[in-house]
Amino acid sequence: MVIGPRQDRRPTMNDVAARAQVGLRTVSRYVNGMTNINPEMAERIRSAIEELGYRRNLAAASIRPGQTSGVIGLVIGDLANPYWAALARSVESVAAETGLLLTIASSEEDGARHDWVVERLLQQQVDMIIDVAPRTVGRSWSHWSPPLPPVVFVDRPGDLAGADTVLADNRGGTRDAVAALLAGGARRIAFVGDDRALHTMDERYEGYLLAHAQHGVVVDPTLVFETSHSSGQAVDLVARLLREGRADALFAANNRAAVGALLAFRTVGTRLPIIGFDDFEAAPLFDPPLSVVAQDVEAMGRAAVRAGLDRLQGDDGPARVQVLPTTLQLRGSERP
Amino acid sequence: MVIGPRQDRRPTMNDVAARAQVGLRTVSRYVNGMTNINPEMAERIRSAIEELGYRRNLAAASIRPGQTSGVIGLVIGDLANPYWAALARSVESVAAETGLLLTIASSEEDGARHDWVVERLLQQQVDMIIDVAPRTVGRSWSHWSPPLPPVVFVDRPGDLAGADTVLADNRGGTRDAVAALLAGGARRIAFVGDDRALHTMDERYEGYLLAHAQHGVVVDPTLVFETSHSSGQAVDLVARLLREGRADALFAANNRAAVGALLAFRTVGTRLPIIGFDDFEAAPLFDPPLSVVAQDVEAMGRAAVRAGLDRLQGDDGPARVQVLPTTLQLRGSERP
Repeated sequence: MVIGPRQDRRPTMNDVAARAQVGLRTVSRYVNGMTNINPEMAERIRSAIEELGYRRNLAAASIRPGQTSGVIGLVIGDLANPYWAALARSVESVAAETGLLLTIASSEEDGARHDWVVERLLQQQVDMIIDVAPRTVGRSWSHWSPPLPPVVFVDRPGDLAGADTVLADNRGGTRDAVAALLAGGARRIAFVGDDRALHTMDERYEGYLLAHAQHGVVVDPTLVFETSHSSGQAVDLVARLLREGRADALFAANNRAAVGALLAFRTVGTRLPIIGFDDFEAAPLFDPPLSVVAQDVEAMGRAAVRAGLDRLQGDDGPARVQVLPTTLQLRGSERP
Repeated sequence: MVIGPRQDRRPTMNDVAARAQVGLRTVSRYVNGMTNINPEMAERIRSAIEELGYRRNLAAASIRPGQTSGVIGLVIGDLANPYWAALARSVESVAAETGLLLTIASSEEDGARHDWVVERLLQQQVDMIIDVAPRTVGRSWSHWSPPLPPVVFVDRPGDLAGADTVLADNRGGTRDAVAALLAGGARRIAFVGDDRALHTMDERYEGYLLAHAQHGVVVDPTLVFETSHSSGQAVDLVARLLREGRADALFAANNRAAVGALLAFRTVGTRLPIIGFDDFEAAPLFDPPLSVVAQDVEAMGRAAVRAGLDRLQGDDGPARVQVLPTTLQLRGSERP
């Protein structure tokens, strides 16, 4: 009589051992890829696995030290934002090349939620965590007791000693964009941005200051806005600016701000020269096409995964910070 | 006297059930985010959870056999497409509400890659798989030996008996859009679409035929294109149509086709009335704003997760197909 598993549960390694008439240890060695197994036994195990539909339980396996879950955990702001979606896409595609799955969790820029998803990723024993620090900071990374998987910060630095970091050149990219607006004759360039507590915002603001300093133009602090957290807030802010007539150009410090500004142009029926930070698919389709500082999101995702993989391979060198260059795409919207 | 849990252990679901004076199953359903619970009971459970400080212990749950890994697996086409990103976003947000993580994998519309990611998700023992069948079909779902976690097909039907399915009303949405173009006087409406082997394309094509039939207008089959797999291909196709002058309006059968058509309008310097299928953030920002058939992606993601959770709770009723309505958003681009 053939002994099969009960129908109401998944077949276990024990079932495979019974069916193949070999010891549990041998099945375990086979399943874990050992090759020094008697070929006849290996063949019996292979058949038993196929007949029973046995599948290795990686969720269980991953709690054994030294094993791998085969999963990268990625914590981003929010999948609805095309910038994060592009980053996720890039990480996912590199992960797939190396046979890894990707678990994505959104922090919604909230510290408590960020900590919850990190906790859950650690429970899942992911192989590495690629983390975007949220706007409102939660616990310090030192809160989690070691051992931690490799952690790589992307887009913004994080607070874990020894972790690698991949950033874009926010300062240089913004400096070039604002310089282009100044070169076009603008003298009252509004900075439409988010909270400067965000690393990226602070760097972009510095780039804005740098360009002004290089051109000998004094910045009017009443043209610097840190309150554009969403495209809706940017709409209101830019609409007010247009009505007041105080600005002669806009630097939109992220894609939300740029979309909001374009919506305000449409609502108010007038426009200003504008350059945005972050490229997105629709940017060239507007009238005029939107000029942007483009980050190489593909390269950032790739660099982050590679950094984590290097650490998994035992690289225990000092933490590295990579700053990837940006590209200024001038398409027309920078002109009056 | 209020009966509380002993101080030396975490409160369990049993403690919550005892405190709220409801059955364990009801607490479990509440904790798993089910909404069809007697409101008075739900309120008692909510209070009990708060008073006891009960927290669902997913870490323990995931290592007990037959229990949950706390992860939803989602197989989509490609995160770079805003439609899939929006779907992923919706599933992720419902997952988070119920304490679940989300593992996302792209099939790139390729059957072999699809099968690889499904295999990996099964190894990870995900709690459910929400699956978008790829354009080129791989193995049949019957290839994988049971037991499988609940599988829910979304956007397109799949080939697993008993699996639930969540679709948009592609046929009705397209019929209404094409009817609006016909009502505006168009008589030679090009269908710019992808391969009709895709369920969604076939349904949209049927909607296009239906609207013509209802208006007593004969379709010119040389205006029906199934070769627009990417926005680049749509650009070429629409640019040729514009130069030939054979069409007097366009139905862009997905967001790639719509973006390609707008790019072609810009390149050629002329435009046609157009309505697209799928809304996206930039659609209202074009000049004129793009009219679209909008799917309720949020509701689709929610319905898919809920269907899977119901199955996890033991619902073994016959497979359900939910077809969610679409909305025609007329913004101006449908006019000459």
